[in-house]
Amino acid sequence: MMSEPPIRFTRGVPAVESFPTTQLAECAVTVLAEQGRIVLQYGQAGGFPLLREIVAREVGVDSGRAIIGNGSLQLLDLYARLLVSPGQVVYVEQPSYDRALTVLRRGGARLRGFPLAEDGPDVDAIEQCLKQGERPVLFYIIPDFQNPSGVVLSLQKRQRLASLAREYEFWIVEDIPYRRLRYRGEEPPTLFSLAPERTILLSSYSKLISPGLRVGYTIAPQPLVNELARMAEDTYINASYLNQAIVALFIGKGWLEPQITRLKALYEPRLDATLNALTNYMSDLATWFKTEGGFFVGVTLKGTVDAGALLKLAQEANLLLTDGRSFFADGSGGNFIRLPFCALTPEEIEIGIARLANVVRKAMK
Amino acid sequence: MMSEPPIRFTRGVPAVESFPTTQLAECAVTVLAEQGRIVLQYGQAGGFPLLREIVAREVGVDSGRAIIGNGSLQLLDLYARLLVSPGQVVYVEQPSYDRALTVLRRGGARLRGFPLAEDGPDVDAIEQCLKQGERPVLFYIIPDFQNPSGVVLSLQKRQRLASLAREYEFWIVEDIPYRRLRYRGEEPPTLFSLAPERTILLSSYSKLISPGLRVGYTIAPQPLVNELARMAEDTYINASYLNQAIVALFIGKGWLEPQITRLKALYEPRLDATLNALTNYMSDLATWFKTEGGFFVGVTLKGTVDAGALLKLAQEANLLLTDGRSFFADGSGGNFIRLPFCALTPEEIEIGIARLANVVRKAMK
Repeated sequence: MMSEPPIRFTRGVPAVESFPTTQLAECAVTVLAEQGRIVLQYGQAGGFPLLREIVAREVGVDSGRAIIGNGSLQLLDLYARLLVSPGQVVYVEQPSYDRALTVLRRGGARLRGFPLAEDGPDVDAIEQCLKQGERPVLFYIIPDFQNPSGVVLSLQKRQRLASLAREYEFWIVEDIPYRRLRYRGEEPPTLFSLAPERTILLSSYSKLISPGLRVGYTIAPQPLVNELARMAEDTYINASYLNQAIVALFIGKGWLEPQITRLKALYEPRLDATLNALTNYMSDLATWFKTEGGFFVGVTLKGTVDAGALLKLAQEANLLLTDGRSFFADGSGGNFIRLPFCALTPEEIEIGIARLANVVRKAMK
Repeated sequence: MMSEPPIRFTRGVPAVESFPTTQLAECAVTVLAEQGRIVLQYGQAGGFPLLREIVAREVGVDSGRAIIGNGSLQLLDLYARLLVSPGQVVYVEQPSYDRALTVLRRGGARLRGFPLAEDGPDVDAIEQCLKQGERPVLFYIIPDFQNPSGVVLSLQKRQRLASLAREYEFWIVEDIPYRRLRYRGEEPPTLFSLAPERTILLSSYSKLISPGLRVGYTIAPQPLVNELARMAEDTYINASYLNQAIVALFIGKGWLEPQITRLKALYEPRLDATLNALTNYMSDLATWFKTEGGFFVGVTLKGTVDAGALLKLAQEANLLLTDGRSFFADGSGGNFIRLPFCALTPEEIEIGIARLANVVRKAMK
């Protein structure tokens, strides 16, 4: 008898059926025909000028304040190298994006994680640390549909964080790749709009168009952007203009908004399937954040489990999970499970969560 | 009266008329149509499997030993972070590629530059330093049509370096983006072929197909490659599969060799124009390396000049030069001038070198 295929709750990737392949091919052909000599040559580290204009216009700043890179993680790595000296404190949400934690640690940061509630990290605890004299270089935060929890930062906490960043002069690194993927509910303002002079905005087209293009961007105050562009140039010269020009044309043709509409139609039922299956199978075993968008639902088991044993049992049940501890700056998180739902069908999600419930029951014994 | 256009001897870039734009568009369309779901999704940090196979096959190793990155400078940056601890010694040629020096310095390296002769760096001096107990982590070298000098490392020096790397256990980082662009003369073996267990090979398609694709690669011993792939994944996840698949298909269609033939036909007359103009205008003022390929002729002025004044005089004469000192690890090099000739027509080259002779005469007064 053939074994069932594994259900993968491992990587936060878009659904392959969402890629606008034909449109991207059309853009590639046009860009090469009309601007081949520009996009195939070396370029400026700041990025393809038209795309810089597009992303800057969206937040109402000059295009010189935008830098386009090889995805946004690469830009975070450059910021970590530029801003963080070994031993300096960096604040993060707990849990947070595992790769961002790695990049910040590699920059020498001592990470302090602030636990997440339904409305964002514990701002009282942050304020207390600041009042006690701790001086973080930056606070790395994913305020919209957070990776890995799905949490959205409340308006009130956004306002408090903006004000703390001003008062204590730390950078807010606001990473918002999922922001446009709100399936319902209302959008709070960005931290960038509340404290533009203290905020480094990071985002990308990986979740909206395609990760394979590797087009991410940052917007920050001008002096910092100039330093970052120099460091980018001395690291990879420039990110591919070809890919950036394809994205710029895709947006210029008015194709981004319909693409986002299609994504929402594809992903909302997957979010619903996740939340329903959790209610049906896991109510006695766990709590979770009832997100309204993005890629993830973060699940916290009610009891304690041996995280290693849980992963192993899951694998035996054809269920692939990421180790929850990788998302926690302090190494806790053994009872945390990230459920990325976008690349699975509602049926797969239900099967996966049913399997998860069985596995958790076994692991808790 | 309109001023004449400036002649730019600044950046080592390919001629825009060399880009195989139509062929690349065809490759992009095919790749997106046939493998859209793969190339538009996240991928492995090691790179698009087919291209890994292609570059590995060329040097006769397993494809697992190849990593494809966002150009080769990005890969050198990862190696610098992985291999060099602050204060450790790194050997380089003097002069050498300015961006490589920056990347290595940023990794904490103390650079020691070994002066170049017509047949490569001074290997006696290298051996002496090693015998005296200095232990470099690596020797960064561009043995074929060196940037910025045009020098080709002789077979005898290749053999000696390979043997020294074995004996004293340092890495040879062999950067060979220009190797295939030999317009005449015979090709010596790579250092990689002479000491595969001590050599990290770096190369790219920037000079052969297009820099805008940002496709470079490295081949190294397996344990090192594994570490590098992990670091790449934690820095930019993966380099664009789309661009890598385009390159793989371009090569698969048999288009690379005719492209290289076209490049040679385009660039050889430009090299000849450079060497002829130097003989005609600069014989009394400078010496230079009579290269047989690549992008550069390195010129050393016979007298001493004020480098800043030289650059300024050049600019006033509509001639843009790179500061020679940026290529020298020890900050000397004020009387060195790099002439990248590929992106200029023979006419522009002659005008530029005539201007240069005038400028040098003024600066030497």
